[in-house]
Amino acid sequence: MNTQFKHNFGAGPCILPGLVLDRAAEAVKCWDEAGLSILEISHRSAPFENVVKQTESLVRELLNVPENYSVLFLQGGASMQFCMVPMNFLQGSNKAAVYIDAGYFGQKAIKEAGLFGNVNVLASSKERGYSDIPGGYVIPEDAAYFHCTSNNTIEGTEMFSFPNTNVPVVCDMSSDIFSREIDISKFDLIYAGAQKNTGPAGMTLVIAKNEFIDSVKHPVPSMLDYRVYRDNGSMYNTPPVFAIYTAMLNLQWLRDKGGLKVIEMENKAKAQLLYEEIDRNPLFYGSAAMQDRSLMNVTFRMYDKAQEAEFIAYAEKNGMVGIRGYRTVGGFRASLYNALPYESVKVLVACMKAYAEKHHANVEPAY
Amino acid sequence: MNTQFKHNFGAGPCILPGLVLDRAAEAVKCWDEAGLSILEISHRSAPFENVVKQTESLVRELLNVPENYSVLFLQGGASMQFCMVPMNFLQGSNKAAVYIDAGYFGQKAIKEAGLFGNVNVLASSKERGYSDIPGGYVIPEDAAYFHCTSNNTIEGTEMFSFPNTNVPVVCDMSSDIFSREIDISKFDLIYAGAQKNTGPAGMTLVIAKNEFIDSVKHPVPSMLDYRVYRDNGSMYNTPPVFAIYTAMLNLQWLRDKGGLKVIEMENKAKAQLLYEEIDRNPLFYGSAAMQDRSLMNVTFRMYDKAQEAEFIAYAEKNGMVGIRGYRTVGGFRASLYNALPYESVKVLVACMKAYAEKHHANVEPAY
Repeated sequence: MNTQFKHNFGAGPCILPGLVLDRAAEAVKCWDEAGLSILEISHRSAPFENVVKQTESLVRELLNVPENYSVLFLQGGASMQFCMVPMNFLQGSNKAAVYIDAGYFGQKAIKEAGLFGNVNVLASSKERGYSDIPGGYVIPEDAAYFHCTSNNTIEGTEMFSFPNTNVPVVCDMSSDIFSREIDISKFDLIYAGAQKNTGPAGMTLVIAKNEFIDSVKHPVPSMLDYRVYRDNGSMYNTPPVFAIYTAMLNLQWLRDKGGLKVIEMENKAKAQLLYEEIDRNPLFYGSAAMQDRSLMNVTFRMYDKAQEAEFIAYAEKNGMVGIRGYRTVGGFRASLYNALPYESVKVLVACMKAYAEKHHANVEPAY
Repeated sequence: MNTQFKHNFGAGPCILPGLVLDRAAEAVKCWDEAGLSILEISHRSAPFENVVKQTESLVRELLNVPENYSVLFLQGGASMQFCMVPMNFLQGSNKAAVYIDAGYFGQKAIKEAGLFGNVNVLASSKERGYSDIPGGYVIPEDAAYFHCTSNNTIEGTEMFSFPNTNVPVVCDMSSDIFSREIDISKFDLIYAGAQKNTGPAGMTLVIAKNEFIDSVKHPVPSMLDYRVYRDNGSMYNTPPVFAIYTAMLNLQWLRDKGGLKVIEMENKAKAQLLYEEIDRNPLFYGSAAMQDRSLMNVTFRMYDKAQEAEFIAYAEKNGMVGIRGYRTVGGFRASLYNALPYESVKVLVACMKAYAEKHHANVEPAY
């Protein structure tokens, strides 16, 4: 096995802190006071019920979740939320749901919603290759809800402001939740697949205003009904025990680091370092509109596309993992999630500089 | 930490083989050739795609799955299947689905199906406290499908024969799949939450006849559409990576042990040992009808119910974990899943004998 340290820029499932991995591995071997593994304990046991409570309270503390919101743990990823949201809040309604079309996953959400009622796309950046967050729209007062994606993992754009509206706001925060401070009270329902900054794949976090989920009046299957999760403390059935446990470890790590204020500064510093090199280096350019550049997923390309494969090979040889852009987009994507060290970004930047120097002697050296 | 060896009779999540736990723990620390954890690798990477393929082929090999069936990995547990089955096969149909009401989980499945169309309960053992598998029913030729639960985890009953019918047969096999040989061709769709003999919580196995899932003609949300899982190799979205990986390890363990023929013999020997003691010991009696006694979940009581708490305390002091009956049922439940050693059953039986001797000197000693 090659044990050279790798710089994991993967888009998700993504890098997790070494300490979290060590503690999770230990728990798989032996966890409770009886000596059982976290994989073989009852989810109804007091120690595990305590894990769920602790995970919930870490979410509440880190994100400053108001008391009238529920914190729920589900399965199925954000993709299940693409149908669960309209099944609850659009089905049987005579209102239309309004969506922002700003990327691959938002588009999927729109498609699923269409099965349940009227959907209007308020704004789209599709014609611009999803290179920006579209603006200039007005949210109709009578919409069932407004849906947006706070960070577009594939395209590398991120929303830095959210609308003020009386219409319920639903947001897919899969790839930037826990990366920065956010005002939860501006949203009625937030969902996030865990496998970025929350924990391993297999768990979905939902933060929902109670008033909003209680507004559902038609029957919904139990496992697709937010109230059922709320009323049963996310334990209507067997939850994804290990994913919740590891999320707890990961959120503890984040809290011990200083929480969102500290991680947001670190994330900004990492993104700034990389974007500066992209803008400075004559071989590369950023894919996303300047004002909407994501702090989590940095997408970029080479002016000479024929060199991209060579640069990927060069970066991989130098310990980089996961910088290939999404298959339908091409180019590069460096994901800078919470657990990725600043050092890894420095190594990538050095790699870009060195590549430019080595392969293009006519390029002015930058250091 | 108390490191005394525990005999884990828990009903699920349940005991897993020590070897599987060790290998899973190792993978959480470091898994691929780049030195990354199984929790931080891309689900689209070749090594993980290979894990999914291997897990599928182990399921096919162990259960002798015919080629015209798909093997799918989902999330949400059996409870999600309670709604997903009728959403696909009952919704929009003018036929009725027919269900057997033989326990707590079957009842839940019936309730969810009622949201999607007409449901007829063909037979029920509710009035007998679900102490048997009800029989004597005729499956109407025009039913949308027939639904049964092969093993009732809470009540301790198990189906040892399945109907011959032209109507599609759907079976919840959560708690006895991989415990015995089964003729897959008698079923059109089998589902099972993983957290018994398959692997850790967080994954659902579905084995479905292609013809059956292709018979669905109305639109179904992607994440609730079996065809979407089939057509995308269970990777329409990020799957529960760790749960699938650990299931693969667990099924490898089962194959290396000799597969279902061997494990079925072992499981029968364990159940026989315990049922013999229950029948012999004057303090105890079995809860389930003799002919329907489960090989996986042995439910029993004491004639003197006032002594049950004392026996549980006595058993726990002697290293037994998880023998308390389900909260709505009471008494005892000893789950004898694949990974539970014969030795553990011997210890439980010795405990029952010793308790009877010690506390009831007038009981004839059995050994």
